[in-house]
Amino acid sequence: MSQFAQDTAIERVGEHHFRGELRQGWRIGTVPNGGYVLAVAGRALRAELPHHDPLTVTAYYLAPTVLGPIDCVVEFLGGGRSTSYAEVRMSQDGQLKVKVTAAYTDLDKLSGASWSAADRPQYPPWEQCEAPPDKNLEFRERAEMRLVAGTEVFRERKTNGSGEFCGWVRHSDGSDPDVIALLMFADSFPPPIFTVLGPVGWVPTLELTVQVRAHPAPGPLQVRLRSRHLTRGVLEEDGEYWDSTGQLVAISRQTAKVRIPHDKP
Amino acid sequence: MSQFAQDTAIERVGEHHFRGELRQGWRIGTVPNGGYVLAVAGRALRAELPHHDPLTVTAYYLAPTVLGPIDCVVEFLGGGRSTSYAEVRMSQDGQLKVKVTAAYTDLDKLSGASWSAADRPQYPPWEQCEAPPDKNLEFRERAEMRLVAGTEVFRERKTNGSGEFCGWVRHSDGSDPDVIALLMFADSFPPPIFTVLGPVGWVPTLELTVQVRAHPAPGPLQVRLRSRHLTRGVLEEDGEYWDSTGQLVAISRQTAKVRIPHDKP
Repeated sequence: MSQFAQDTAIERVGEHHFRGELRQGWRIGTVPNGGYVLAVAGRALRAELPHHDPLTVTAYYLAPTVLGPIDCVVEFLGGGRSTSYAEVRMSQDGQLKVKVTAAYTDLDKLSGASWSAADRPQYPPWEQCEAPPDKNLEFRERAEMRLVAGTEVFRERKTNGSGEFCGWVRHSDGSDPDVIALLMFADSFPPPIFTVLGPVGWVPTLELTVQVRAHPAPGPLQVRLRSRHLTRGVLEEDGEYWDSTGQLVAISRQTAKVRIPHDKP
Repeated sequence: MSQFAQDTAIERVGEHHFRGELRQGWRIGTVPNGGYVLAVAGRALRAELPHHDPLTVTAYYLAPTVLGPIDCVVEFLGGGRSTSYAEVRMSQDGQLKVKVTAAYTDLDKLSGASWSAADRPQYPPWEQCEAPPDKNLEFRERAEMRLVAGTEVFRERKTNGSGEFCGWVRHSDGSDPDVIALLMFADSFPPPIFTVLGPVGWVPTLELTVQVRAHPAPGPLQVRLRSRHLTRGVLEEDGEYWDSTGQLVAISRQTAKVRIPHDKP
């Protein structure tokens, strides 16, 4: 069993009620990564619903989670032949921490036209890209990444003004991504606003939506994460994720706030 | 009182419980426009929460709404000094139709850095842009629009392959947009995939998230709505909205499905 499968495992503890465990290895500072927490909800939805794949999933992060047990109560909201809607309330010690709403489907049964506005960007392969020097970032023990450009932001605080990080990400134990892992990888890159402002403190996620399009093939995921509009401290981060065969497997958008420590020298 | 204010008005009918009325004038075919319905939820949230402006709002459309009364039950989910989180369950005749999750704030109190990756696009003024020939589209009685390009898609089914509609939108009674109107205008343009596939039937919204950045100034809104990835019938629509002073006031993303009638000749 992969590290990710173990660390997102849930058990059924009652009707529509599951319990997971937020484990060490996935934190940014002291707080478990939001994508990792969303993946635990993704497992509960998969266990409960007649459809097994996320199509679009939205998390609102109400309060920071901590390591330890997390209760996931799933409510079925409706649906039909091709789609099920549900919400998950994620609580720790009785406090509601994360609220998830989702549409699940069977991705292999999607049918209809396909088209993309542009070809997927061409990156140098994993081996030729650079790991950012994430000093003491526990999360990097699990979600290993490489950047096409921009590592100088972290090393020398040198900004390039692009608002964009491009690169690769994979499970550090070498296991292959599944469709639930996409929910985690959708929050696995550093904030691209760092390429504009430098690596400024903390960029907490208020809300994250992931649209899943296909089951990923084995191998690392190709990622482009962009911010286009920072408005008085509020920004969006838009992600695109392709698997190793070049297939688009997910897109993401989050709303986040830039928090710059006041006691900066 | 503007038409939009009248048609999104709510009354308090119980604790955390409001009632609105989905009115004629806002329908696409037989179904009230999803952005219009979201705006009714936006009014209920504004009436209930200590913070009065949407910061990010997500609707999952579980079942089509119809004209007539709609119940809005608001649940406070948490929050702090700058942000309140809540959900709204919107029901008609006891059936849950739309599920809204939101973070509200006071937009005028946002503080922090601002930046954009690119300048706002330059469009010809409203008067020089063309109204698309929306035959019998009731919604256009309320949300009047002009396109910079692409009206030939509707007139001659002539596609340009851009995946993009650019133009202007405003209340047809000439009233100025407020911050709640942004939730409606975020679903007011035709599906930009029409520029690729032609005006193909029906593109129902599964989920819509609107990020609001500022109170709009009086005047029409400048809109860019784009689809980049259509995957076996599933696509995203990303919108950007600037007010008449050039200020970015909102961005939006929705997940939608393209449904092409099978009985097409």
